[in-house]
Parts: sequence; C-alpha cells; structure tokens
Amino acid sequence: MITSTGNQKVKRLVNLRKKRKARDEEKVFLVEGIRMFREVPAERLLEAYVSESFYKREGGTVSRVLEGCAVRPEILSDTVYDYVSDTKTPQGVLCVVRQKEYTFAEAAGGERAHILVLDNLQDPGNMGTVIRTAEGAGVTGIVMSSECVDVYNPKTIRSTMGSVYRMPLYRAKDLTEAVRRMKESGIHTYAAHLDGVLSYDEADLTKPCAFFIGNEGSGLREEVAALADTYIRIPMEGEVESLNAATAAAVLMFEAARQRRQQ
Amino acid sequence: MITSTGNQKVKRLVNLRKKRKARDEEKVFLVEGIRMFREVPAERLLEAYVSESFYKREGGTVSRVLEGCAVRPEILSDTVYDYVSDTKTPQGVLCVVRQKEYTFAEAAGGERAHILVLDNLQDPGNMGTVIRTAEGAGVTGIVMSSECVDVYNPKTIRSTMGSVYRMPLYRAKDLTEAVRRMKESGIHTYAAHLDGVLSYDEADLTKPCAFFIGNEGSGLREEVAALADTYIRIPMEGEVESLNAATAAAVLMFEAARQRRQQ
Repeated sequence: MITSTGNQKVKRLVNLRKKRKARDEEKVFLVEGIRMFREVPAERLLEAYVSESFYKREGGTVSRVLEGCAVRPEILSDTVYDYVSDTKTPQGVLCVVRQKEYTFAEAAGGERAHILVLDNLQDPGNMGTVIRTAEGAGVTGIVMSSECVDVYNPKTIRSTMGSVYRMPLYRAKDLTEAVRRMKESGIHTYAAHLDGVLSYDEADLTKPCAFFIGNEGSGLREEVAALADTYIRIPMEGEVESLNAATAAAVLMFEAARQRRQQ
Repeated sequence: MITSTGNQKVKRLVNLRKKRKARDEEKVFLVEGIRMFREVPAERLLEAYVSESFYKREGGTVSRVLEGCAVRPEILSDTVYDYVSDTKTPQGVLCVVRQKEYTFAEAAGGERAHILVLDNLQDPGNMGTVIRTAEGAGVTGIVMSSECVDVYNPKTIRSTMGSVYRMPLYRAKDLTEAVRRMKESGIHTYAAHLDGVLSYDEADLTKPCAFFIGNEGSGLREEVAALADTYIRIPMEGEVESLNAATAAAVLMFEAARQRRQQ
C-alpha cells in the first residue's frame, strides 16, 4: 500500500490529472469512479488504483472488473487517494487508460456520416456533455479544431459518462483541410449561425452531414463558418439570441437522428 | 465611494450573493455583468453598484441604462467590488433585482401550454441553461419541485443569459397538486423515462403539454414519474443510457417547438 504523497507513483498520477502535456506524452488519461472503471475497454486499461477503504468494501467488484486482464490493483491509503483524486467526494477507484487515436476516415464514418465539428470549444464540462450526447444521437465522429479544450481533462472525462471510450474523436491540425475532405466525401456541411436562413429542421439531414458548433462565448469563428456549405439556424422564441453550445449541438444532432429513424 | 469591505451595504451584498435565505427574505437577487444589467426590466431594478474603474470607463453606458429610472449607481472601489463579486474576472457592474412571483396559471400559459416540470434539479448551471433553452423553445412556464436548486443562485442567473427576467417560474409546494391542475386544464403530461415505449417524436406535442425532467444523477423520482399520463423516451444509439438532464429537456422542448411551427 502506498501511504505517502511523496511517492513517485503518486506524483506521476497527480501530474497526469493536472497536466495535459503529461497525459499526451504518455498517451494516457485518468478515469475515476466505479461506473467509468467498469466500462473501460479491457485492452486500453493500463493501471488501476483503489483506496484502502474502497478495496475493503468493493474488492470483489474490482477483481471482477479486472478478470482476464493483466492489471492488478494498487492500493493507496485513503489520505493518499484523496490527494490524487480530482473529485471532492472520491469514490475510491481510478485507472490509467490508453488514449486512442482515430483517423479522419474513422471519425467521418462512411456513408452514414453524421459529424460534429467543434470550433474552439473551451468548457471541459460542455465538451464532455457534447461527447455523451453525440454518442446517444448516433454521431459517427467528432472533429475538433486544435484550440478545443483537451478531451482528456478529468472534468471532461467525467461528463462523458463513458462515451469517451467509444466516440471517434479527431483533433484536426488544420480544420480547413478536414472540411475539404468532408466535402470531397460528399458530406454536406452546416454551420449553426445566427445569419442562417434555413431552419435546421428544413434541411435534409438523412444524407451524410456535418454540423459546425462554435465557442461558448464567441460562437463560430467567421472563417470557420465560411467553410460550410449552408448556414442553418435554430428558430428562437422570446428574446433568446442563441443557445448554449452543447444545447445547440444536441438539438441539431437529435434532429438528424429523428429524420434518419423515419427513412 | 465605498472603500471598506466592512461597510454594512457590502456585507448585505455578500449575504445576498451567498445566502438563499437572505435573497428570499428581501425577495431580491443579484445580477452581474453589463449584458444582464442592460436587460433588467426597469420596474424590477432596485439598486446598481459599479466598480470605480468600470465607472470611469463605462459611466456613459451606466447612465443610459438607468435613464428614466430612479436608481443611481453606487460606486465601490475595485477591491471592494472584487470582494462582492461572484466571478473571477468581474466586469464591474452588479445590481439588485426584485424577484417576480408567478401564479400557476401564468406558468401554465393557457391554450399554448408548453410546460417544463423540473423534479429536484440540483446543478445551478444546469438550471440556468434549462431556463435559457426553455425561453428559446417557446416554453410557457417552468414548474419546479420544492427541492430544486434556487433559481436565484448567482451561477444560475448567469447561465440564464437574461431569460430569468422573462420565463415564468413557479415553485410548487406540492408537485402532485400542480400536476393535477395541469391535467384538469387539459394539459397532457409526459415523463422522460427509460421505461418509455413511445418515442418523444411520435407524441403529438402541438397540443398543450408538459415534460417532466428529473435530477441529474438519479432521474425522475418514481412517484413523480407515476403522475404523468405518458412515459416517453428519447431513442439512444451506442451504449448511452440517458442524456444529461438539461440536454434531454432541450431535445424535448425543441421537438415541441418544431411540431408547432409545422401546424
């Protein structure tokens, strides 16, 4: 059992929690909580850490999850566990998971293409919610501009509720180039934009399509919006100008899902 | 100019920011930022406070907003302003706004009824996002169970982006009674529920309707869900069981808005 916060392994875990650079160098991320622990794809689970009290209470669960997998849990004293944890009321289990890199083609998803393009999304919780919603709506992949918040931020990971394991994520070094490839593949690109004339539900979203969603505060950058084939808008009642980025994305993605169910 | 954090007015403002009880006793809430300040309905604006540097920079804006209104801005030194403010990078203007109480009938909204019923929603940011989204979707009013987070929490207020001024909000002491009144008024009640058989987009949402949305973690309480006429579900792809509460609410509300536009 590790009982000191000065332990090298503990220092590394804290680094992985706090620093994107540390995560990207090792190509891993941290996952906390029993639910997310249960859902880790076995081939990507690299290490597991449990608090002493969690292990006493849930040792059986931990063993079942790790069955048939070479990983053995390492036990941390409760104090050390709390020190490593990102949450205020730690559940007592965390693991180190391998990042997965997807190609553009994997994120595009072929003839059923239903892509979300995120331009400079900055809020970690929003990012996680978007990834979770996207999986639920049948999105084939998410293409992110290089400025987007790290998807392996612990808060993002938590908000995905496990979707981060399954949703193809592609960080585009050059978003213009990625959009060009979408168009070449016959994917219709829509920018959610206040200047949109076409209402989102009047567009034919049964065809391969991509939605561009912008930053929480400033919206889509004009040069990114300009790449889209069509500006669409979500009609608003009252005095609301726009929706929260994650909400706008949800409305668009679930309209595409609805139209596709009715085909 | 107020230059001491020991000032009685400053103490009261901090109390109003931190304590629901203080807000409810005075029947007011605090609003921060220039945008929300501009949108305050004049008859509900009670007091305005600006930081010294904001006043130097934007005194003209403040005067224009306050034109034709008896309120005069009180100036706080920047240090005192930062002490009172709820945000990390304060804009420099905050005001005290009168709470508005709506009757059940006002929240129900008559023959175009489109109601959101929130059962024990706990996250302040979620609550604010839901209020903003609801206005955008043409919701006539929001009925909240008594356990819901305070809508006048500063974080909630901020997330509403001004919709809190306009959306009829009704906190039901007895949710069962409120639902009974909806049914009496011919409003069809739908619970978003994993056991739902009817897909939300197959329901006729052009008629007066209400959607029940549950707590972020635990969903709708069974006894609340049981009050609804119909359980509906949002069909999910992948391994997603459910959506974030605010996201589920958005999908339902905008489907009702879509159906109503097509009437």
